[in-house]
Amino acid sequence: MRRLTIGKLRGLQQIADDRGVFAMCAMDHRGSLQRMINPDDPGSVGYETLAAYKEELCRALAPVSSAVLLDPAYGAARAIASGALPRDVGLLVSLEATGYSGESGARLTRLLPGWNAAKTRRMGASAAKLLLYYHPGLPDVAARQRELVQQIVEDCAQADILCLVEPVAYPISDEDRDPRTFARRKPDVVLQTARELTALGIDVLKAEFPADLRFEQDEGRLLGYCQALDEASQAPWVLLSAGVNYEDFARQVEIACRSGASGFLAGRAVWQEGMSLADGSARRRWLETVAADRMRHLRDIAAEYGRPWWKKWGDAPTELVQVGEDWYATY
Amino acid sequence: MRRLTIGKLRGLQQIADDRGVFAMCAMDHRGSLQRMINPDDPGSVGYETLAAYKEELCRALAPVSSAVLLDPAYGAARAIASGALPRDVGLLVSLEATGYSGESGARLTRLLPGWNAAKTRRMGASAAKLLLYYHPGLPDVAARQRELVQQIVEDCAQADILCLVEPVAYPISDEDRDPRTFARRKPDVVLQTARELTALGIDVLKAEFPADLRFEQDEGRLLGYCQALDEASQAPWVLLSAGVNYEDFARQVEIACRSGASGFLAGRAVWQEGMSLADGSARRRWLETVAADRMRHLRDIAAEYGRPWWKKWGDAPTELVQVGEDWYATY
Repeated sequence: MRRLTIGKLRGLQQIADDRGVFAMCAMDHRGSLQRMINPDDPGSVGYETLAAYKEELCRALAPVSSAVLLDPAYGAARAIASGALPRDVGLLVSLEATGYSGESGARLTRLLPGWNAAKTRRMGASAAKLLLYYHPGLPDVAARQRELVQQIVEDCAQADILCLVEPVAYPISDEDRDPRTFARRKPDVVLQTARELTALGIDVLKAEFPADLRFEQDEGRLLGYCQALDEASQAPWVLLSAGVNYEDFARQVEIACRSGASGFLAGRAVWQEGMSLADGSARRRWLETVAADRMRHLRDIAAEYGRPWWKKWGDAPTELVQVGEDWYATY
Repeated sequence: MRRLTIGKLRGLQQIADDRGVFAMCAMDHRGSLQRMINPDDPGSVGYETLAAYKEELCRALAPVSSAVLLDPAYGAARAIASGALPRDVGLLVSLEATGYSGESGARLTRLLPGWNAAKTRRMGASAAKLLLYYHPGLPDVAARQRELVQQIVEDCAQADILCLVEPVAYPISDEDRDPRTFARRKPDVVLQTARELTALGIDVLKAEFPADLRFEQDEGRLLGYCQALDEASQAPWVLLSAGVNYEDFARQVEIACRSGASGFLAGRAVWQEGMSLADGSARRRWLETVAADRMRHLRDIAAEYGRPWWKKWGDAPTELVQVGEDWYATY
């Protein structure tokens, strides 16, 4: 049985709701958010604009989330400094730099220089998150990515902060570039990825939906893929939204939660259309109404079907930690 | 104007209510709690009993508090591990060992071996607290105590965690041992202590009421003492209860909050009578009813009269922090 440390347990309590289910909103986007704000010239979207958009997102959506995910450069500190993040909403902070490096189509994650898990802990956040392009079909690249995960798992253990990892599959061959082929291969890729990464001791897996609703609609098969993903994952898992449209995402969340997921960490599916509204007050109104309603609805689905995170590891959260007389001295 | 760092600001948000006022419950007692549980043989009250009493206190009173103060040996980790501490209630953890050392009546604070501010941060707490016997009338001893405060202020800065200091005056002469004399000297002692310790850069002062209601009942003079204390303190301050009876403490909280205090951090005045109930279910019922009602009532007084913590330092909390483009790299 997995043993939890006190800092990680407190973190899980803070990012989940009272029942132990996650209803989290991601707003740590950088490059993709710049493209939404100004598709013609994303590079012209500077610090102040990005930071202001993120503050708006946080102010509108954090109050209807159990936790929010922000990046350290544009979002996390501003959310605290501005008061946009309520005192009782958990905070996750990303560790990676935006984009990736690599040759011949391989994608390698780089950490954001000047940022780390220890700083994430110091600022009062509850979890560190690592986005990871990952494909088990490229063994050498995958091995290097796993090394990075191992390093982050150790850094997080040192700071006793949660480590949430978000693997994202990508096309690694010309065949893969055909969406239908990529979709057919997706369940295997997502499951194998979950198997390989959760074996490294991460605390929460942020998983892709293991199918593509454009090509697979059969409810029984979709539930089967998600149940297989649940078996493949040694850690509690939440669903990411990856920019699918909101209706599809809501369906995915229900299927995933009925199959063992502990909730969701949703980004663009909740708020993407609003980012193209150039008028500030129209944009804020949209976030406070349409996007907030989406979060509430997703939260209700997760509350109804989601499995409390601790059930992955035991019958009760109290079983997972041991505190004895010398805890403080040996901690 | 005082500048706040992000970890400390998040901590203040977490231990205060939404308005920025503190309604906190102290349950970090060790020696004094053992004496309450078994007055005849306090030393026989062992780890399991103390830990279980603290868990009961936390379960009953944390839900009606903005934050709770626990000690690292018997309370803090257990409160998290057992689920007795709600996810949205702040946690303060004490740094000192119980009791004191010193010669010829002088009292020197010792830190709890094996515990420190960095561990307090790692476990997910929002503040570290140092209890300090202090009397400005013993300059050499006071200087050594201030050195300890300075060290803790630095440790807390390193971990970017709040530093709350609780000075407690004590009799330093035979004359002082006459309660009436001690009471007459108390306003000066409490004010001078506040002046000397808040100059060291602590974040929150946990202050004694600067008078003794047994010998001073005049409302105008009591308000005057508290206003002078408010002027003497460079940090936001909260009132401690020091085992006075509940009715007196409620009156003290109102007077202090009308004079600039930002709330209270109450221990024995809220729950002491319950600790002598040997029957577990009677004790828990008493805590859940009488003691919880007391916390609610004190919280209402603080909410009505208390000054938001940030008003000590500026017109709005957002003024107190600066977050720019390179924040994450220089943090």
